[in-house]
Amino acid sequence: MDGSFVVKGNIIWSESLSSIKSMEDSFLVVEEGKVKGVFKTLPSQYSSLSIYDSGNGLVVPGLSDIHVHAPQFGFRGTNLDLELMSWLDTYTFPEESRLADEEYADKVYSLFVSTIAKSATTRLAAFATRHTDATLALMDKIEEAGLSGFVGKVNMDRNAPDSLREESADYSASETERWLKAVEERGYSNVKPILTPRFIPSCTDALMEKLSLLRDRYCLPVQSHLSENMGEVEFVKELSPSSAFYGDAYDRFGLFGGEGKNGCIMAHCVLSGEDEISLIKKNGVYVAHCPESNANLKSGIAPLRRYLDEGIKVGLGSDIAGGTTESIFDAMIDAVKMSKMYWRLVDDSKEPLSFKEAFFLGTKGGGSFFGKVGSFEEGYEADILVLSDSHIPYPRALSPLERLERFAYLHGDINGLEAKWVKGRRLF
Amino acid sequence: MDGSFVVKGNIIWSESLSSIKSMEDSFLVVEEGKVKGVFKTLPSQYSSLSIYDSGNGLVVPGLSDIHVHAPQFGFRGTNLDLELMSWLDTYTFPEESRLADEEYADKVYSLFVSTIAKSATTRLAAFATRHTDATLALMDKIEEAGLSGFVGKVNMDRNAPDSLREESADYSASETERWLKAVEERGYSNVKPILTPRFIPSCTDALMEKLSLLRDRYCLPVQSHLSENMGEVEFVKELSPSSAFYGDAYDRFGLFGGEGKNGCIMAHCVLSGEDEISLIKKNGVYVAHCPESNANLKSGIAPLRRYLDEGIKVGLGSDIAGGTTESIFDAMIDAVKMSKMYWRLVDDSKEPLSFKEAFFLGTKGGGSFFGKVGSFEEGYEADILVLSDSHIPYPRALSPLERLERFAYLHGDINGLEAKWVKGRRLF
Repeated sequence: MDGSFVVKGNIIWSESLSSIKSMEDSFLVVEEGKVKGVFKTLPSQYSSLSIYDSGNGLVVPGLSDIHVHAPQFGFRGTNLDLELMSWLDTYTFPEESRLADEEYADKVYSLFVSTIAKSATTRLAAFATRHTDATLALMDKIEEAGLSGFVGKVNMDRNAPDSLREESADYSASETERWLKAVEERGYSNVKPILTPRFIPSCTDALMEKLSLLRDRYCLPVQSHLSENMGEVEFVKELSPSSAFYGDAYDRFGLFGGEGKNGCIMAHCVLSGEDEISLIKKNGVYVAHCPESNANLKSGIAPLRRYLDEGIKVGLGSDIAGGTTESIFDAMIDAVKMSKMYWRLVDDSKEPLSFKEAFFLGTKGGGSFFGKVGSFEEGYEADILVLSDSHIPYPRALSPLERLERFAYLHGDINGLEAKWVKGRRLF
Repeated sequence: MDGSFVVKGNIIWSESLSSIKSMEDSFLVVEEGKVKGVFKTLPSQYSSLSIYDSGNGLVVPGLSDIHVHAPQFGFRGTNLDLELMSWLDTYTFPEESRLADEEYADKVYSLFVSTIAKSATTRLAAFATRHTDATLALMDKIEEAGLSGFVGKVNMDRNAPDSLREESADYSASETERWLKAVEERGYSNVKPILTPRFIPSCTDALMEKLSLLRDRYCLPVQSHLSENMGEVEFVKELSPSSAFYGDAYDRFGLFGGEGKNGCIMAHCVLSGEDEISLIKKNGVYVAHCPESNANLKSGIAPLRRYLDEGIKVGLGSDIAGGTTESIFDAMIDAVKMSKMYWRLVDDSKEPLSFKEAFFLGTKGGGSFFGKVGSFEEGYEADILVLSDSHIPYPRALSPLERLERFAYLHGDINGLEAKWVKGRRLF
């Protein structure tokens, strides 16, 4: 198909948080990897393109996972009894240490990438570990699988076991530069580097200064964690007493914001206060909302409606292995459920999220971090999923939107992903 | 196998909330439909029994769904934007009205029963609708499928549309008696009737009086709803001003408690106050905890730890279609997640539920409503599941308990149910 083709089916996509489009039995036209449009009748100038006819399938944009830890794939679905800081010390840091072993890293990353490749996710912003070579191996695998997104070699030079902590700020920075140069040499077309200071508790000021310089020199986007859990927020206050708030501890080093290819993702933002929210908005920071992880690690519920009302950019993250599942459909549903509990238990002036809004977050909301991604408007990159729900029996007619909602609630993606394209290239 | 056989594998079962047993590569012996025991080496007296060798499979007791609405199967996974009372009026009552049409009822109930038969659920306490003949048809299907449990013809003579409401208390009671007599005639061996006043808002005092008499005459268990959602609780206060609390409105008619085959399930108990909790405990009422539904309908989070600390009997319910999924594994995970949010957002003196505790609730906790069900202790009825997790890749060794937890988190039951027995009879 070489990037130019037509997909026929019941086509659904979001244009904004409040606008979702659904066209039954229609034609999605892709030329040279970009969407030309959705048509009720196929325009004659496209009649020579090959057609993938999904029958009665649902055709939706690919999903974006804007916060995931690839090396934690090995213990997902287990060890979820602790809060963040003790969970990191007890389970996560020891497991990430094991990625120093190239063979083990290869095993973990192979499983991670093959799982994402088979999933509804087309774009991801992933943490690797501090290990430079293993990080490159992960990027090789993502590139080869035809997925697209950002991967970060993690920086961490304090508050972690010797087996995982980098020995100094200098070492961490020089390894980061070695990584960035190797990435340039490898000339990936689908996967790009993203600067990844793990979070304030893991990074000395000296390291942050060096990362700031690297960010400017290499024109890099950045990802980290923000105001996830009470213990963490308290610890940041101790570690960075001169910062006005957690986000300020990044902002002082120019690591809290940016536009386009130089953007910034902060994961969680469960406990952000007024000043932090203002700066998130002002600096154009993306919030990676990770509702499953925030429940599992007992962090709480992020004030999502507040962020959306402010016009803050929000996408969804699986946050494996604080989250267990790679499914961004599951993340949509968790976001809806948790917003209802926020409304009931925290603040009933904050209207719960609708499924349509959650669908926007999982497609165009997070996708916009990667460019024109996550919609079927003209010019968008052709990330496309064909969903079959014929394995979910029902006794009455449903609209395509009802079918999509039900597909998401009932984990339809486990058996119902029929075809997937990333940037116009078919993966299955 | 005729009810006497051996299952070999990694065998896991709960004996109490705090005690879970796991025996690797062992033998579960069943004689005449009852568990004899779990053995590391097969005792010689059982060596002539046929062996189902699950290889490296996990072998666990069947799960019990102690609150589910079979007629709502037709719209599960959709229409989840409203709170309980408006959700009932807008979506549920109109849908249940459609079950008056025998052909439609047959379609819905066929799909419901075949879905439960393929699921991890072996026992269920199900609501039908007010329609007597359709209720009998549902019971026929459950019996035929080899599932076991209770089904209730619903009683409702007020506050519902004409198309669904029964015309009088007399009519409702006489239809209930017609139903009970037909059940006796059909001589089911696996499915039994349970008295099912829908909930206080749907039942006049006159009807409740008649149901109370029927309960005594036919020695029936009873199921209903209790303190689920704020709007409902307020409405009950209006409707029954002389009741000290919601549960008292059932108790006045002898419909709030009972033992053994004459037991009582109250679904939800999200908003129960001190007096109600005391009476639940005193009367031996089962709480059907339905965490997914309570999130979807914005009801809140039930104080589960409180109930467990009090020694109140608790099981899990899917509550389709307030809940979307039939999976009681999903209900276990939702119970854990929501208990963490209760701890974080409501009362941090209430320790969150562990996975092991949730597993108890989904097996022996709810199973005990049906008799000796949900464990592998000697004399328990042989409800058995063999789980395969070979489709969930992982890079390192896990214990059987870790594998079970991961299976539950990752919706392993969708593709990983390998064999299922109910009362020693194999379903697949």
